[in-house]
Amino acid sequence: MIQGKSVINGKEVQSKNKASFFTYNAQTSKQLPQQYDNATLEDIDYSCEVAAQVFADYAATSSATRAALLIQIKKELEQNKVAILEQYQLESGYPDGRAQGEFTRTLGQIQSFADLLNEGSYVKAILDVGIEGAPDLRKMHFPIGPVVVFGASNFPLAFSTAGGDTISALAAGCPVILKGHPYHAGTSELVAHAIQIAIQKSDLPAGIFAHLHGESIGVGQRLVEHSKVKGVGFTGSYKAGKALYDIAQKRKEPIPVFAEMGSVNPIFILPNRLASDESLPVDLANSIQMGTGQFCTNPGLIVVSGQATSSFIDQLASEILKGEPATMVHSNISRNYENQLQNIKNQGVTIHKGSLDANCPALGVISAEEVLKNPNILEEVFGPFSLVIQCATTEELNTIAEVLPGQLTATILGEPNELKENKQLLATVQQKVGRLLFKGVPTGVAVSPSMNHGGPFPASTDSRFTSVGTSSIERWLRPVCFQDCPQDLLPEALKDENSLQIFRTLNKQLTKSIV
Amino acid sequence: MIQGKSVINGKEVQSKNKASFFTYNAQTSKQLPQQYDNATLEDIDYSCEVAAQVFADYAATSSATRAALLIQIKKELEQNKVAILEQYQLESGYPDGRAQGEFTRTLGQIQSFADLLNEGSYVKAILDVGIEGAPDLRKMHFPIGPVVVFGASNFPLAFSTAGGDTISALAAGCPVILKGHPYHAGTSELVAHAIQIAIQKSDLPAGIFAHLHGESIGVGQRLVEHSKVKGVGFTGSYKAGKALYDIAQKRKEPIPVFAEMGSVNPIFILPNRLASDESLPVDLANSIQMGTGQFCTNPGLIVVSGQATSSFIDQLASEILKGEPATMVHSNISRNYENQLQNIKNQGVTIHKGSLDANCPALGVISAEEVLKNPNILEEVFGPFSLVIQCATTEELNTIAEVLPGQLTATILGEPNELKENKQLLATVQQKVGRLLFKGVPTGVAVSPSMNHGGPFPASTDSRFTSVGTSSIERWLRPVCFQDCPQDLLPEALKDENSLQIFRTLNKQLTKSIV
Repeated sequence: MIQGKSVINGKEVQSKNKASFFTYNAQTSKQLPQQYDNATLEDIDYSCEVAAQVFADYAATSSATRAALLIQIKKELEQNKVAILEQYQLESGYPDGRAQGEFTRTLGQIQSFADLLNEGSYVKAILDVGIEGAPDLRKMHFPIGPVVVFGASNFPLAFSTAGGDTISALAAGCPVILKGHPYHAGTSELVAHAIQIAIQKSDLPAGIFAHLHGESIGVGQRLVEHSKVKGVGFTGSYKAGKALYDIAQKRKEPIPVFAEMGSVNPIFILPNRLASDESLPVDLANSIQMGTGQFCTNPGLIVVSGQATSSFIDQLASEILKGEPATMVHSNISRNYENQLQNIKNQGVTIHKGSLDANCPALGVISAEEVLKNPNILEEVFGPFSLVIQCATTEELNTIAEVLPGQLTATILGEPNELKENKQLLATVQQKVGRLLFKGVPTGVAVSPSMNHGGPFPASTDSRFTSVGTSSIERWLRPVCFQDCPQDLLPEALKDENSLQIFRTLNKQLTKSIV
Repeated sequence: MIQGKSVINGKEVQSKNKASFFTYNAQTSKQLPQQYDNATLEDIDYSCEVAAQVFADYAATSSATRAALLIQIKKELEQNKVAILEQYQLESGYPDGRAQGEFTRTLGQIQSFADLLNEGSYVKAILDVGIEGAPDLRKMHFPIGPVVVFGASNFPLAFSTAGGDTISALAAGCPVILKGHPYHAGTSELVAHAIQIAIQKSDLPAGIFAHLHGESIGVGQRLVEHSKVKGVGFTGSYKAGKALYDIAQKRKEPIPVFAEMGSVNPIFILPNRLASDESLPVDLANSIQMGTGQFCTNPGLIVVSGQATSSFIDQLASEILKGEPATMVHSNISRNYENQLQNIKNQGVTIHKGSLDANCPALGVISAEEVLKNPNILEEVFGPFSLVIQCATTEELNTIAEVLPGQLTATILGEPNELKENKQLLATVQQKVGRLLFKGVPTGVAVSPSMNHGGPFPASTDSRFTSVGTSSIERWLRPVCFQDCPQDLLPEALKDENSLQIFRTLNKQLTKSIV
């Protein structure tokens, strides 16, 4: 069923480009038989032009129509679950539990956007009407235009082809041009096929979803440069995300790029908690190794102070040393992990690692004093690793918080009293993060309206938006105000009768009332 | 009372910089006596460092505290109204009616943000709590950090020192570093003084509002580059706005720049309406000349087709020819107006202008065919001018809509039937604008929750946000999610009891209920 071809406007592209690539069995690093054609400049241009042509029609569909499309996508994915997960496990090396979990999460995400559309208030209708001497003003949110989404290597389903970026953009009314991640091109193609069948069954224009294969970074770059593209969604490394952001800002018309680029997700543990909570070493060791450390919210930094520091480090190191080497999604990522470990070792970090084998969990230890002399040590090591920073005093712990760059999450663990006594730490950390935890571990990102997955630069390129949860639809919407528009020309959400029965701000009151 | 000094952290800066500048009587172009010191690099750095130091404390104030500050600013402005308006009229040349109107508008804006804060739901609290097996998640919006605001030449009050950008940022909880516009440095200083007195009387840190004088563009550039600055508000020319945007994107940490950069605000008039509406020439001529054409929403383009085209142009030209030369805010702007007129005349536009005097209203006429050959003709002529494009057919009118760049506003005037018959035109135009009018003229931007003043690039740098109306506070806010946070450490808006009685999304229901 996998053909290795890009699909644009509902048709397989017979690429004239000779360049092609393969995916690999993540367990064995052996090349898989299917060959994939790199999208050409012509393919890129065609996919963007088609998306722009169908944009107005797709943008004009009702929220209910788009909700029905999402439900259809969900159905098609369910029907193809076996084939998709087989390819997923081949290409990612993730175990069955993870595969099932990510699949379920992906369907749950789709359902949550369908629910959001059916409820309908996400268009943020604001009306100021019937005011003496003032015009009739009605504002709501509309889709921004065609969007390019990049599949993420570490989540072949939930952050890739039918992941949060694609689904939120389709929900908003934006056509999507999906650049599949080359590490899981086969999985991506199968998922894309499910989306394309769903579009066809929903009688919507085929041009609202294109799937492009590409191993060359040029494919992504040319997509972001294309004048018809109005927004970009990306999850991945700082280097790649920032490069796409820079390209987008240098365009004649700059466009928003929502790049979620990773983070060390510091965990601050206050002295009394460190001394009293015996479950910490095991819980943290599990979180560090979850998904072979390939989560955006992997706890890569643990900052501790107080008398229990040494015994905590000993216990945590002993837990980590028990860890078995596990598969990473690609040999490049595995190689990178080993290089980064070597790099921080060279900078003076003590490394605890059970074996020399690739992908083996590891723990680093260093003093706060050394970190303050060389903050480069704080750079993310992507993999099953965490760096423990030993602080001599709580003041030093505050100082570490101050020098940290922006993060997706931070966790502060403390006894009730010591949390109250450290309000300055809480305030400092809050300024650096998108999500602040007081319990548990940062891995495990709930898909809910209250979730915030994003954070101050360099964790993401725009801290005002989340890439997980229903609020992520806001990335693809912009307001338009209608002044003195005849009723019959107004969008449904702005008409007097409020037939959609949505919440609207009517003359400054939030209400479902008619005008 | 005007000292010509920047004020940082509540104290006048005795600048060591020898460079200084003057403002001018806009009517006579004569230099006014007061000398103003350009802010130095040291001043810029100090203002940003102080703003960063007080940020956490100011961000932690209640919405009620900030509402009280805004009301106090309003009081101080009212008490200094005579002095402020005297300087305003000297420096801008605007007549008394405009001065009174802009002053009232400025106070109204401040009141609307105070009301927004007192109501309190703008923090967008979203709670998902008490769900089996899921963490306790509570999200709300917080200020992004210190913000730089640039005064605008054309609105010395409403879009300058105590204008929408400053007031929305202070309302959000962001310290503001205000770069006064050099054309009205005296007005700016008087207004800044009123803000500073209000801050003092409110017992808030003086560092939350700095006022810097600067004629050199370097002052603005260095401010935008400063690492402690987290956002920028600007209203002015494309050239200046885009330059600031580019600087902000090239920083190590890119930051959002909300530059509202102008627009030709096209008015499309459909054939039957053009033939039947006799009031059009007078109404349009008035709108074109309002404020000597120095409004962001000045109708700089009128696109017509149909049999009545010639007689409409004759009548509109005759109204424009009756117009008297009026004062512009600065001789530079006046000179620029004349140069731009000459420039489009050289490109083949027929110019109707009553006299050769500077600032005299003018009308340009050209065929759609010529415009399509040379779309550069569509560039904004800032001043009391409009360009009429004659279309041979309604299709040509559609084509003009398609080639137009992003706009703050567009107006479509048509009889009910012809509006319905031209839905394609409406859809095309909607994609290009932030506000779409069906009656009246685009000048006159109501300050209300439903207003949208912004639009696709190049009208503004971020079409997802407005710079007028209470929604503009969203530019300075970002979400933070608290996971499993103890009640006593939660911000008031997220606590179970909802003591602020705001609307919150609680387990997907919009409600004022307690948890």
